Amino acid sequence: MAVKKIINQPPNILEEMLNGLTDAYSSIVYRVRGANVVAAVSEHLQVGLVSGGGSGHEPAHAGYVGSGMLQAAVCGEVFTSPTPDQIFEGIKAANKGLGVLLIVKNYSGDIMNFEMAKELAEMEDIAVEMLIVDDDIAVEDSTYTQGKRGVAGTVFVHKILGAAARSGMSLLELKELGEQVVANMYTLGVALTGATVPEVGKPGFTLAETELEFGVGIHGEPGYRRAKMQTSQEMASEILEKLDGQLGFDAQKTYALLVNGLGGTPLMEQYIFYHDVKKILDDKGVRVTFVKIGNYMTALEMSGVSLTVMEVKDEQWLKYLEEETKTIAW
Amino acid sequence: MAVKKIINQPPNILEEMLNGLTDAYSSIVYRVRGANVVAAVSEHLQVGLVSGGGSGHEPAHAGYVGSGMLQAAVCGEVFTSPTPDQIFEGIKAANKGLGVLLIVKNYSGDIMNFEMAKELAEMEDIAVEMLIVDDDIAVEDSTYTQGKRGVAGTVFVHKILGAAARSGMSLLELKELGEQVVANMYTLGVALTGATVPEVGKPGFTLAETELEFGVGIHGEPGYRRAKMQTSQEMASEILEKLDGQLGFDAQKTYALLVNGLGGTPLMEQYIFYHDVKKILDDKGVRVTFVKIGNYMTALEMSGVSLTVMEVKDEQWLKYLEEETKTIAW
Repeated sequence: MAVKKIINQPPNILEEMLNGLTDAYSSIVYRVRGANVVAAVSEHLQVGLVSGGGSGHEPAHAGYVGSGMLQAAVCGEVFTSPTPDQIFEGIKAANKGLGVLLIVKNYSGDIMNFEMAKELAEMEDIAVEMLIVDDDIAVEDSTYTQGKRGVAGTVFVHKILGAAARSGMSLLELKELGEQVVANMYTLGVALTGATVPEVGKPGFTLAETELEFGVGIHGEPGYRRAKMQTSQEMASEILEKLDGQLGFDAQKTYALLVNGLGGTPLMEQYIFYHDVKKILDDKGVRVTFVKIGNYMTALEMSGVSLTVMEVKDEQWLKYLEEETKTIAW
Repeated sequence: MAVKKIINQPPNILEEMLNGLTDAYSSIVYRVRGANVVAAVSEHLQVGLVSGGGSGHEPAHAGYVGSGMLQAAVCGEVFTSPTPDQIFEGIKAANKGLGVLLIVKNYSGDIMNFEMAKELAEMEDIAVEMLIVDDDIAVEDSTYTQGKRGVAGTVFVHKILGAAARSGMSLLELKELGEQVVANMYTLGVALTGATVPEVGKPGFTLAETELEFGVGIHGEPGYRRAKMQTSQEMASEILEKLDGQLGFDAQKTYALLVNGLGGTPLMEQYIFYHDVKKILDDKGVRVTFVKIGNYMTALEMSGVSLTVMEVKDEQWLKYLEEETKTIAW
């Protein structure tokens, strides 16, 4: 064994993971035959939402497939974009005749491949639109990205658009709603350790025992600053300050928060981190009306957390966040 | 900072975690004033179910408080039993006049303190029964335990009894149902790394980079065998063989499975492990009718998984497992 992971042969990871996942949750999802696509069992007549990207971020995105969220997730190899033909399979599985919206995290490979799949679908007269999520404020341009990266806020996009699509919203309305959500949503994280891609066999980056790094990407892309290990309060303070610089917290507005564990950090620590975030926001008089805490968009076994803040521009967004789903992981 | 964790001062961990958790999910749970108790907002008239134990196993047990599962969780310091007075607070919060069932994992400290709390409650004329869960087949007697340890199967007990209690089952019926479930449920795990209690500052045990250990407890108690690092298939094979020795898999019966991540193992690996488990069971003709995969009962950031197998003795148990809940983490 090259790495200390519960796997068999690295080239079989995606296949075995998809079969395990879809077998376990067959009342919610199924695997599209011959494709790396997890599709919803639910056959509600609506615009289809499709997301996806490289694997290694579980439960994203397959865990968000089901009634009230996505209709299909397309799964690439670990940290590798799915190919256009696979994405096209996802589009076909999600299409109920009312068109398909692609929700894509802003990585160059993903954008290119989802674009090509969109063209393939349009040749078969399927109406397809694409929404790009770029919520990570850590850096402009990065290892695999032009502009900002797409990270955990993507899950809020799945949830809000998923509820809206189920309620009957049209393809173009969904795209517009998605653009509004993305424009009002910001994420920043901190990593305490790196993560190891199985095929590579060693961590993508390493941090000393006394070191952390702010702004690391979910594929281990460099952040904006390394620092000595800090308290949760100090991490929360720096992250909120950076977010505040982007969105300008306002006591007259309300916000939805996602504390996202990157994979190796226990929930205990995530709750403590949220406690520190909340204390700082309370002191500013900032009101939080929706919170989720847990491993929603991971980077394999990386230790660390990210914080997503979305301004609730419209009370309807909050209703969309709160509506019930039938998914594995929301 | 003594350890690489997202915390502040170690003595404040429990307090900050409880406040963070209950603030974030205030529509589901609340913190009992002045006590380390997370109680359900739901005020359904039913027998109250109370569980708890040391912290560091999140989302257990507070994540299972809410309609259809527990009415209260009592949270001790990390890997430390809650005190009798705290458990008594949990009993009072859960008691709606129809009595309270305590669901206790089999650790000597927990048993002693829950027993004492039961006596305190009985002095105030609250009817209390106690159910002991000892599903871990790894070893007889252990660091903190006489007999077998209680581990992840406890979550199935919460779910089945929680649904039954909500449906109106009496205290004594619930205890009897719980005893039947426990008698038909077996768990075994494998650890790839140790875990560090914050106050201690170093791992409770260590494994070499090429080593794993079968049967480690959720507080890092010794297992039954160290071995060279293996494939997921090999781990699944050994664990199923040991479980088979206890329960005797039977193609005429059906089973519910819980693949439980111990904290540091990504979902990707848990799905692969389940895929291997399922393949072996399929080859034996063993039918699985319910599956959950995820971090349900963790050991801080320990890497590894456990597998719980419960024989579904009564189809009603399956219905109880499948019923909806309003909890943070089921």
